[in-house]
Amino acid sequence: MNHDEWVRQELRGLSQSLGFQYTPIKEIENRLTRIRGNMEKKEVEGLLVVEKMNLYYLSGTTQDGLLFIPLKGEPQLMIKRELERAKIESPIKNIITLKSIREIPTLIQTHCGKIPKSLGLELDVLPVKEHFKYQEFFPSTRFVDASPMMRETRKIKSSFEIDLMRVAGEIGKKVYQQAKKILKKGMTEIEFGGLLEAAAKKYGHEGLLRVRSLNYEAYTWHVLSGITGGIVSQSDSPMGGLGLSPAFPVGASLKKMRAHEPILVDFGTCFHGYQADETRMFSIGKMKQKFIDAYKACQEIHDAVLEETRPGTDCEAIFLKTLRLAEKLGYKDSYLGPPGLQTRFIGHGIGLELNELPFIAQGQSYPLEEGMTFAVEPKIVFPGEGSVGLENTVLVTKNGYEIITPVEQKIFQV
Amino acid sequence: MNHDEWVRQELRGLSQSLGFQYTPIKEIENRLTRIRGNMEKKEVEGLLVVEKMNLYYLSGTTQDGLLFIPLKGEPQLMIKRELERAKIESPIKNIITLKSIREIPTLIQTHCGKIPKSLGLELDVLPVKEHFKYQEFFPSTRFVDASPMMRETRKIKSSFEIDLMRVAGEIGKKVYQQAKKILKKGMTEIEFGGLLEAAAKKYGHEGLLRVRSLNYEAYTWHVLSGITGGIVSQSDSPMGGLGLSPAFPVGASLKKMRAHEPILVDFGTCFHGYQADETRMFSIGKMKQKFIDAYKACQEIHDAVLEETRPGTDCEAIFLKTLRLAEKLGYKDSYLGPPGLQTRFIGHGIGLELNELPFIAQGQSYPLEEGMTFAVEPKIVFPGEGSVGLENTVLVTKNGYEIITPVEQKIFQV
Repeated sequence: MNHDEWVRQELRGLSQSLGFQYTPIKEIENRLTRIRGNMEKKEVEGLLVVEKMNLYYLSGTTQDGLLFIPLKGEPQLMIKRELERAKIESPIKNIITLKSIREIPTLIQTHCGKIPKSLGLELDVLPVKEHFKYQEFFPSTRFVDASPMMRETRKIKSSFEIDLMRVAGEIGKKVYQQAKKILKKGMTEIEFGGLLEAAAKKYGHEGLLRVRSLNYEAYTWHVLSGITGGIVSQSDSPMGGLGLSPAFPVGASLKKMRAHEPILVDFGTCFHGYQADETRMFSIGKMKQKFIDAYKACQEIHDAVLEETRPGTDCEAIFLKTLRLAEKLGYKDSYLGPPGLQTRFIGHGIGLELNELPFIAQGQSYPLEEGMTFAVEPKIVFPGEGSVGLENTVLVTKNGYEIITPVEQKIFQV
Repeated sequence: MNHDEWVRQELRGLSQSLGFQYTPIKEIENRLTRIRGNMEKKEVEGLLVVEKMNLYYLSGTTQDGLLFIPLKGEPQLMIKRELERAKIESPIKNIITLKSIREIPTLIQTHCGKIPKSLGLELDVLPVKEHFKYQEFFPSTRFVDASPMMRETRKIKSSFEIDLMRVAGEIGKKVYQQAKKILKKGMTEIEFGGLLEAAAKKYGHEGLLRVRSLNYEAYTWHVLSGITGGIVSQSDSPMGGLGLSPAFPVGASLKKMRAHEPILVDFGTCFHGYQADETRMFSIGKMKQKFIDAYKACQEIHDAVLEETRPGTDCEAIFLKTLRLAEKLGYKDSYLGPPGLQTRFIGHGIGLELNELPFIAQGQSYPLEEGMTFAVEPKIVFPGEGSVGLENTVLVTKNGYEIITPVEQKIFQV
């Protein structure tokens, strides 16, 4: 059978019967209007979108290719490999084959009648070697970093995006509901983490979590029990855990989980690229009172953040408020990590990536806006003993907030 | 308890009791000698290693930091976050705290007595924005792309590395042995993939697979059944599968696996960063004869590659030989993908990443060398019907090869 024929006739129906949702044309048009507003401010004539998540956001597809967006006129999607599939996934009208990236200038010239004098590129992730090529292909063009305008555009979520995040939240809820049945005394952290992940996948969790960074790798198996919860690692997080080797020294390890230890499960889920992030505590038998008390403090800090969560509140002010509260509650030296290694954020924007705007953090003085989504995660760390925490993903609504990770906020004791 | 104190006293013992292996100093010294040979050829006075896998390869740690290697003299490891942990993981003598990357020039000046006139950076992955910073910090330094010399150095594996890959291969073997018990009629591809991954994690699989690329994301749940095996996607592979959404349109989907379909499981495992990659076929009841025949052809092509696998054989010649053999066997239009979408490689180097040297591929005319490791993966694709394949990871030995993925090469029928 001819592959392209088959894709044209069968792929959409098969995909939709298996739960695929395609980004509607109205949604893409709204996003294009917003990014063009930002392009205009930066006096950029065109945008060449290279990185996969920005490509998905602006075209609806992640097929191997690039999207050219002129300030005025139709965008052009150039696909290296699976053209027919891109045509099903993306509502962009203009979708063509790209045999080699050398063709890009000619394709843009043909499409627009001219080569843009200024071109936005995602310099936050584009490798230098590829940048050299674009400089060679467009010798008279001024390149501008498009990453701030992309972050700015993506920071406000549409109802289409929020609905996908809600599904991710529902997947998380199902996983936590099963977790009590999965957790057994003597099971290793990584075995528990692996089984939680398998449960999530069954419900459509995409397996990957994404973060915009050269070296930081996101993962779902952040299960820390007792002593490993007190270990800091490479990641900018209150506690990294032990991990499995020096090549991946974070997250779950081969340590067995024991009775009465605090077991922290920080679990992210992903649906159609959109992520939900949440943390809950587990224990086999009752957790030591010290950890129960610290968990209550986390709940209090968590609630204090939500109390301030509405359009207009300053992000840094929220963070500073939690510092004062943690001190008042007696956790100055254990809140967000051990002394000298404490992180300086209590929340991170979340959507297609885990490090989007806003950051509820030191030095991040700007207001919350309606449609922002972030994860709030107070954590308390006792080196050599363990850690506790609570995390939810929330949406900033017109007058307040909505929690989109609807799992009970209690310690799950088995 | 003081975190650093605890790490100094307890972390090594705890880690080793849970299976951690640290890179020995001799191993690091050998690698440094080899990379310096390549630096000398390129007339580079220093190397600033930024990317995590190269950092791990040359220092033994992946803690957040950078490694400076002068052409002569001791290297200097600069750690942003967990200094005490880096000291346990890395045998490098000179390990210091890095408060801000702005300090790098001063730290290098203090360490070496001078700023290098030429400095190697990994321009294949370094984002442009970060490159701008280094250009600002080192205004009189000439930057050189260090990625070819890193690839060149890493392409030959030491016995320490090969032993880690063998463990990854053993983990894969255990997973495939359990897979027959896990596979059930009516189970979805992603549920099967998730449970295989959970089984692998239990034995120490690190969960992540790594590939050196901006947009390509490696994953372990490449389970394709019947019709989804005939679908090409974003990845440069004979068949991508359907995946779970347009945001991740590759690998396992929510499609249920049915009796008599070919079920292809391409499963990678990772131990201490080192990967093994293998593909086996499964079926519920007997697979249709067409697929059994095609699988036999894959075995024949696989064996033909191994027949040529020894130091000195040209990589492109091996690939071209498989094209002729596939044609002779009647699979010209289905070998490595459907017409127009066929991939041009039959093997890829593997180690810390899935796209290392050598490539057994068109245009890759260079000899195999002792100590190279690659995955050989003949695959045959029938759009609208399904696909079959066989894959093993092999080591090039002095006189031939050794398979390091020791799973039976048969169709697993349940």
